[in-house]
Amino acid sequence: MSNAETQSKTIIGIVDQTVVQLFQTMVSLEATPGAGSTNAPRTTVFSGMSGSVGLSGRVTGIVYATFSEQTAKHIAEKILGCGVGEAEMTDAVGELTNMVSGNLKSRLCDLGFNCSLSIPSVVRGESIRVSAKNAALGVSNEYTLEGFDRPVSVHVYATFEN
Amino acid sequence: MSNAETQSKTIIGIVDQTVVQLFQTMVSLEATPGAGSTNAPRTTVFSGMSGSVGLSGRVTGIVYATFSEQTAKHIAEKILGCGVGEAEMTDAVGELTNMVSGNLKSRLCDLGFNCSLSIPSVVRGESIRVSAKNAALGVSNEYTLEGFDRPVSVHVYATFEN
Repeated sequence: MSNAETQSKTIIGIVDQTVVQLFQTMVSLEATPGAGSTNAPRTTVFSGMSGSVGLSGRVTGIVYATFSEQTAKHIAEKILGCGVGEAEMTDAVGELTNMVSGNLKSRLCDLGFNCSLSIPSVVRGESIRVSAKNAALGVSNEYTLEGFDRPVSVHVYATFEN
Repeated sequence: MSNAETQSKTIIGIVDQTVVQLFQTMVSLEATPGAGSTNAPRTTVFSGMSGSVGLSGRVTGIVYATFSEQTAKHIAEKILGCGVGEAEMTDAVGELTNMVSGNLKSRLCDLGFNCSLSIPSVVRGESIRVSAKNAALGVSNEYTLEGFDRPVSVHVYATFEN
């Protein structure tokens, strides 16, 4: 885990596995990871609903998971088994982002990079521009969901302690 | 620091002092704190440029500092002493948010609540809806800047360890 490329690939590997398992388990949906990028631009434009959770410790960073409103609604309905409003959609996005981040945190901990999580917050809007200039590495991937037009995307910006 | 009201007032006190000093020192502007809220709604709508930094440790949470584009531009120009573009505005917002959060972190540490910071990220857009439902407390305040129409606002959502 000594260089940025290895760290980036490790993160994408963990996130891919987590997202696929999470969608399977939580909402019985098949999520197919894209090729992924180990050099994601530090400034990205999102639209829809984007959950974020900060990491701090031997790895410092932030995880963003972005869902279209359609996807967020579907997931919240599947989890709750009833019609949902904005509050439930926000909850679902926050909770899924927290689960992805939590799993990333434990896997990084297993690799000797202990860190802890901040609370999840959810940002909703069109053309939300996110910038994490101080991060040593930026990785991202998109996950196509069967039956949905827009993929879910996950961005992780992080700096590993030497 | 045993109840939410005391914790909330402590946070607002620290943030007020930090923001006033920061504006005075960094950009020679007088920032006047509003009355502040110790029960800020967990869902808020921002517009402009909003920096965020996560806290984790004995206090877990997130700090948002929101600036109008005009304010962000002015601050970046004052700091750099030249005309600036979007990248420099984003940097300035991220850096000021990081300084507010860093000071909050050290003061909480002095009070026995050790925590560390995630990296700053900056969100830009109109009607950015931020939700931090899991936070035990939410505080906010606005800071009027001489010569500017829109105030700077700071929101802190946090949960203290028992």
